[in-house]
Amino acid sequence: MPLSVSQKDSVLDLQESQNLTKRPVSQELEKILYEPIGVLDHGFIRVVDYMGDDDAIVQAARVSYGKGTKKVSQDRGLIHYLMRHRHTTPFEMCEIKFHIKLPIFIARQWIRHRTANVNEYSARYSVLENEFYVPKKENLATQSASNKQGRGDGLTPQNAEEVLEILKNDAQNAFSHYQDLLNEDEDGHVRDEERQGLARELARMNLSLNFYTQWYWKIDLHNLLHFLSLRADSHAQYEIRAYAHAMLDIVKKWVPHTYEAFEKYVMQGAKFSADGVDTLKKMIKGQKVMQKESGMNPREWREFCQLLSLNPETGNDVTD
Amino acid sequence: MPLSVSQKDSVLDLQESQNLTKRPVSQELEKILYEPIGVLDHGFIRVVDYMGDDDAIVQAARVSYGKGTKKVSQDRGLIHYLMRHRHTTPFEMCEIKFHIKLPIFIARQWIRHRTANVNEYSARYSVLENEFYVPKKENLATQSASNKQGRGDGLTPQNAEEVLEILKNDAQNAFSHYQDLLNEDEDGHVRDEERQGLARELARMNLSLNFYTQWYWKIDLHNLLHFLSLRADSHAQYEIRAYAHAMLDIVKKWVPHTYEAFEKYVMQGAKFSADGVDTLKKMIKGQKVMQKESGMNPREWREFCQLLSLNPETGNDVTD
Amino acid sequence: MPLSVSQKDSVLDLQESQNLTKRPVSQELEKILYEPIGVLDHGFIRVVDYMGDDDAIVQAARVSYGKGTKKVSQDRGLIHYLMRHRHTTPFEMCEIKFHIKLPIFIARQWIRHRTANVNEYSARYSVLENEFYVPKKENLATQSASNKQGRGDGLTPQNAEEVLEILKNDAQNAFSHYQDLLNEDEDGHVRDEERQGLARELARMNLSLNFYTQWYWKIDLHNLLHFLSLRADSHAQYEIRAYAHAMLDIVKKWVPHTYEAFEKYVMQGAKFSADGVDTLKKMIKGQKVMQKESGMNPREWREFCQLLSLNPETGNDVTD
Amino acid sequence: MPLSVSQKDSVLDLQESQNLTKRPVSQELEKILYEPIGVLDHGFIRVVDYMGDDDAIVQAARVSYGKGTKKVSQDRGLIHYLMRHRHTTPFEMCEIKFHIKLPIFIARQWIRHRTANVNEYSARYSVLENEFYVPKKENLATQSASNKQGRGDGLTPQNAEEVLEILKNDAQNAFSHYQDLLNEDEDGHVRDEERQGLARELARMNLSLNFYTQWYWKIDLHNLLHFLSLRADSHAQYEIRAYAHAMLDIVKKWVPHTYEAFEKYVMQGAKFSADGVDTLKKMIKGQKVMQKESGMNPREWREFCQLLSLNPETGNDVTD
Repeated sequence: MPLSVSQKDSVLDLQESQNLTKRPVSQELEKILYEPIGVLDHGFIRVVDYMGDDDAIVQAARVSYGKGTKKVSQDRGLIHYLMRHRHTTPFEMCEIKFHIKLPIFIARQWIRHRTANVNEYSARYSVLENEFYVPKKENLATQSASNKQGRGDGLTPQNAEEVLEILKNDAQNAFSHYQDLLNEDEDGHVRDEERQGLARELARMNLSLNFYTQWYWKIDLHNLLHFLSLRADSHAQYEIRAYAHAMLDIVKKWVPHTYEAFEKYVMQGAKFSADGVDTLKKMIKGQKVMQKESGMNPREWREFCQLLSLNPETGNDVTD
Repeated sequence: MPLSVSQKDSVLDLQESQNLTKRPVSQELEKILYEPIGVLDHGFIRVVDYMGDDDAIVQAARVSYGKGTKKVSQDRGLIHYLMRHRHTTPFEMCEIKFHIKLPIFIARQWIRHRTANVNEYSARYSVLENEFYVPKKENLATQSASNKQGRGDGLTPQNAEEVLEILKNDAQNAFSHYQDLLNEDEDGHVRDEERQGLARELARMNLSLNFYTQWYWKIDLHNLLHFLSLRADSHAQYEIRAYAHAMLDIVKKWVPHTYEAFEKYVMQGAKFSADGVDTLKKMIKGQKVMQKESGMNPREWREFCQLLSLNPETGNDVTD
Repeated sequence: MPLSVSQKDSVLDLQESQNLTKRPVSQELEKILYEPIGVLDHGFIRVVDYMGDDDAIVQAARVSYGKGTKKVSQDRGLIHYLMRHRHTTPFEMCEIKFHIKLPIFIARQWIRHRTANVNEYSARYSVLENEFYVPKKENLATQSASNKQGRGDGLTPQNAEEVLEILKNDAQNAFSHYQDLLNEDEDGHVRDEERQGLARELARMNLSLNFYTQWYWKIDLHNLLHFLSLRADSHAQYEIRAYAHAMLDIVKKWVPHTYEAFEKYVMQGAKFSADGVDTLKKMIKGQKVMQKESGMNPREWREFCQLLSLNPETGNDVTD
Repeated sequence: MPLSVSQKDSVLDLQESQNLTKRPVSQELEKILYEPIGVLDHGFIRVVDYMGDDDAIVQAARVSYGKGTKKVSQDRGLIHYLMRHRHTTPFEMCEIKFHIKLPIFIARQWIRHRTANVNEYSARYSVLENEFYVPKKENLATQSASNKQGRGDGLTPQNAEEVLEILKNDAQNAFSHYQDLLNEDEDGHVRDEERQGLARELARMNLSLNFYTQWYWKIDLHNLLHFLSLRADSHAQYEIRAYAHAMLDIVKKWVPHTYEAFEKYVMQGAKFSADGVDTLKKMIKGQKVMQKESGMNPREWREFCQLLSLNPETGNDVTD
C-alpha cells in the first residue's frame, strides 16, 4: 500500500484540519481519520467521514430534543436492549464513509451488499495502476473437501511457489498488454506514435480479477454491522475477512457500546433451530443425546456440537 | 411550535457545544444546527446532524485521497456536470439528519419515500401530546375541478369558519377521549382510580390524522433532492410543500453549489415528450403549431404551453 | 369485510380466469387466488399475483438452465441449507402481491418495512368508506407493566363496554363530519347546494386512525419472511399479528419447503448471547446456574429461561 | 452462445410446460419464455419468469378488486398519464426475472443498479467455463477526445488485428493457467496426481475481466425502465447497450402500452435546464440566440442544439 508523495500530502493536509463543530465527535475515530490502514498486499481502508456516535443512537431511539439521558449506564443499557431485540432503526442513524482499495474479485463479493452508497474509480475514464494482489504463501490452500465453497489444507511449499509464479507472471503480462492496448506508458505518455490507443473502457477487460480498484463506500451502522456479521464470519473468504476485521477495529473506536453489544449478541452469540432447542432442553435435564436422536442431519449436528464445544462423536456424554 | 422549557434547554445545550473535528464543516449549516424552524401551526424541522459538503461530492466523484481540486470554479463546474448528466452517486456521499414534527396525514405521504432512515416517536410506548393541525383559513379550498387530486378555489369566509369549527372540536374531543381511554391526565397521573387504562397501542386509534407526530429522518443528498423535486413541486399538497420549502433553504446553506445546480437543472428545468420536442423544432423554425397538430392531448398541451409561457388557445401564434 | 356486489363480481370474474402459461404454478395458491381472507372486523388480505415457487429458489441458487434437480429430497435439503446459513438471495427470487385492507394505525406500523412496493388507495383523489376498526372485547387490555410497549391484563366487562362506546361514537362522529366537510353523502351526491365542499386531501384529516385504508403490497419471499419473523412474533401488536398469521398460512400453501425451513430455523429457533452460550455449556455439563452467575441481567435471564422452559427462580436446578 | 445439449434439453423441457393459471398472462412474452436471446459473442439474456402486465399497472393505480376498466383506451391513457407525471409506484407492481450471461466487466457496471435481486454463478463453488468476450473489429475504437469516458474513432484494420490478438491470447493463457491452478481439466478431472489444486475462490483471480459470468436478475418494471433509460442511452458503453436493447424488445412484448409511453416520454423525450427553457422561449418568439446569449457553456450548448437538430455554429439562425 505505498501511497505516492502527493497522495500522502493530501492525506496529511486533511489530517491537519482543525474545524469547530456543534456536532457530536468521536474522539477515538478522529485520531485515525483519513489514515490508510493497510489490508492485504496493496489494499487499505481509511475512514473519510462519519456521522453520529453511541449517543446518537440513544437520541434517535428516544426521538429526543437533546442528548437524551446523562447517565452512561442507562445509555449503554438501552443500546444493549436495542441490539438484543433487533430494534435496528436507531443504529441506522449513524453513518460512516470509507475509502477502500481492494482487489476486483473481492469488490465483486462486497458490492452484493446493496445497502451502501458507492463511488468507484472509473476505468472507463481513468487508467488503472499496476497493482495486483498476490496472496501470501500461508494463505494458499486447496479446495475444502467438507465445505464446497471454502479452503482446505495449505499447499506444499513447492506447489505454493508454482501458484505464485503463475499469478505474478500472468498479472504482469496482463498489465503490460493493457498498456500496449492503451498505447500509453505509466506516465500517461503515448508509447508508439504510429499506433492508436484502444478506448479505456475496452482495454480494461484484459486485466485480471486480482487487480486493485478503489471506491468510496458509505453505509449506516446497522447495515455495516450486518455486513460484518457475514464478512467477519469464519465462512467468509479470507481476503474479505481481512477488510472486515479492520472495520471491526474501527467500529470499536467509533461506537464502543454498540461494538460491545454487537460482539455479545451477534458475533459471539448463537442461533439454534427448533431441533437444537429441543436437544438443549434434554441435555440440560441430563439426558444423553446423540445425532440420531437430535432430529438434525450430520452436518447440522457437527455445527451444533461446535457451538457448544461438544464432541460430535460422543455428544454430551461426558462419562468418557 | 412551542417547545417546553426543558426542550428549549436541551436544544440550547447542544447549540453551545464546541467540538474540534478534522471533518469538513458547513459554516452556514452550523449556524442553524439543532434550531427548530417552525412549519405549519405546531410543526418544525431541525437539522440534528450532517455529513459532508459540496467538496465531499467532488472528492467522491474523483475517488480522491485529498480534497480534490483547490479551484472553486472547477469544483462548481463538476457539480453542475454531475447534476446535468444524472451522475447521482457522488450526491449520495452527503448525508443529513432531521428531527421533524408533522401531522400524521403528512407523515403518511412522507414515509412513502423509502430511501430514508426513520425513527418515529412510538405511541405504543409513549402518550401523544395534545397538538393537532388546523389549517389557516386562506389554505382551505374546494376540491379542484381540473386536477382530481388537488385543491381548487378558496372557501368563503363563512364556510371556512364552519370547517375550522368542525376540525377543532373533533380533535379536542378525540384527545379528551384518548385521555379517558388511557385513564390519564396530561401530567400522566391516573384520572380515575376505579377504572383501568387502555393500552397505549390501542388508545391511540381514537386520535385523528391531524395530530402531530415526530421523527428523526436521515437521508442522503441525492435522495433528499429527489424528495424535494416531488414535494416542493406545485402539485404536491400544500402542507408537505411547506416542509419541502424549509428544507430547500437548508440545502442552500449546506451545499450551495449543489443547490444552484439543482435549481437550474431540475426545479427550473423542464421535460418534454417526443411530441413536445417535435413541436419545439417546428416552432423554432417559425411554424405555427396548435394543439391539434402537436400530437398532444388537451391536458398535455396545456402543460406544454405553461412551461413555455404560451397561450394554449393561440399556441405560438403571436400575431395577435 | 362485506364486499359490495360489484366487488364480489370482479373477484369472481378473476377467479374464473383460465390461462395457459409456461411459468411454474403453485397449485395450492391458485386455489385461493384473489379470494379475500377476512382479518379483524372489516379487513382482509388477498393474493392477487405471485411469481415462482420452491423450485424457483433452487433454480436461482444453482443459476440453472432448467428446473434444477428432479429429486424432491435434494431440493428440500438445499432450501433448508440456504435458510440455515442465511443465504438469502435465492429466496428473493420469488415474489407475491397482496391486496390488503387494514386500519390506518396498523398501516403506519406496516409501512416501516421499506423493502416492499406499495400502492395505497388515495384519499386525496377518492373518498374513504365508512369503515373503522373496533376491537373485540377480549382484545382490550391495559398497558403492560413489564413490557413498556405491550398489553397487560384484559379489561373488566364494564370498562371494556365504556371503551368500545367511546371508540364507536367518536369514529361515527368523525365520519359524519368528514361528509359534512366534503359536503357529500355516501353516494357521492352534494349534500347542501348552498355550501362548498372541502378538498379531499384536507377533509381526510378529520378521520381517526382506526379507519380502514387499502393497498396493493408486493414483496419478495425473503423480505416477506423477515416481515413475518417480526410481525408474527408474540411481541408484535395483536392487530398486525392477525395479518401476519393469515400470511403465514398463505406462505405454507405457496412454498411448503420454505415454510417448513422457516418454521424450523427461524420461528421455532432461538438466539442466545455470548453469556447465554456460556451458560448453556455449563448447564449441559451438569452445573447449576442461576441468574447471578449467568452474566445476564434479570430481564435477559427471564427470556433465556423461557426459551428453555426453565423456571427463572430455580434455573436448571431440577432437584426440587 | 452455444448451449450444451443438456442445457438445450432443459430449456426445451421448460418451454413445453403447459400450466393452467388464474394469473394474467402476457401472450407475446410466453412465446419467448426461457429462450436464450444471443447478445455479444457468447452472452445471452432469457426471461425465466414474469409477474403482471399492462393491466396490473392499472389495477394497482386504482387499488381495484378486479381488472379495472374494460376499455383499452382508458387503460392506455392512464398508463401514459402515470408515466408523464412520474407516478412510478404502479409500475413497480410488475416484475420480471432474467437469466443473463455477460462479461465480468459489464457485470460490474450492471450491478451498480442496486434495486434488483441477483443470484450470480459462484466461482467459489464452481469452475468457470472457458468463454471470454472478444469484441468485433467494428466495435474497437480509440478513446474519445470529447467525452472522457467514451469511444472515439474506429481503429485501423491492422491496429484492430493487433488488439484482438492480444485479447485472445491473454484470455486463453489466463484460462489455461486457471486450470493449472485448479489442477483440473475441462471435464473436472485431476490433471496431475502429484500436485494439489488451488481453492476455486483463489484460482479465479487469474481470469481476466472479459470472461463470462451468469446470473439470475429480477427487477420490477419501474426500476427496469430506469436501468434502460441509462443503459440504452447512447452514452452507455456499447457492450451493456447491447443487453439493454435486447431488454427493450422484451419490454415491448411484455407491456406494450408501457413501452409506448416510455419511448414517448422518456427515451425520445428531452430535459432542458432553466437556461434551456429561457432560450426556447426566445427562439419560439423568433429571436436569434447563439451560445453566448444562451447562458449555457459550450458543451451544454452542443447538447441543447443536438436535441433540437440545430447547428451549434449558427444556433437557430436559419437564414443561411
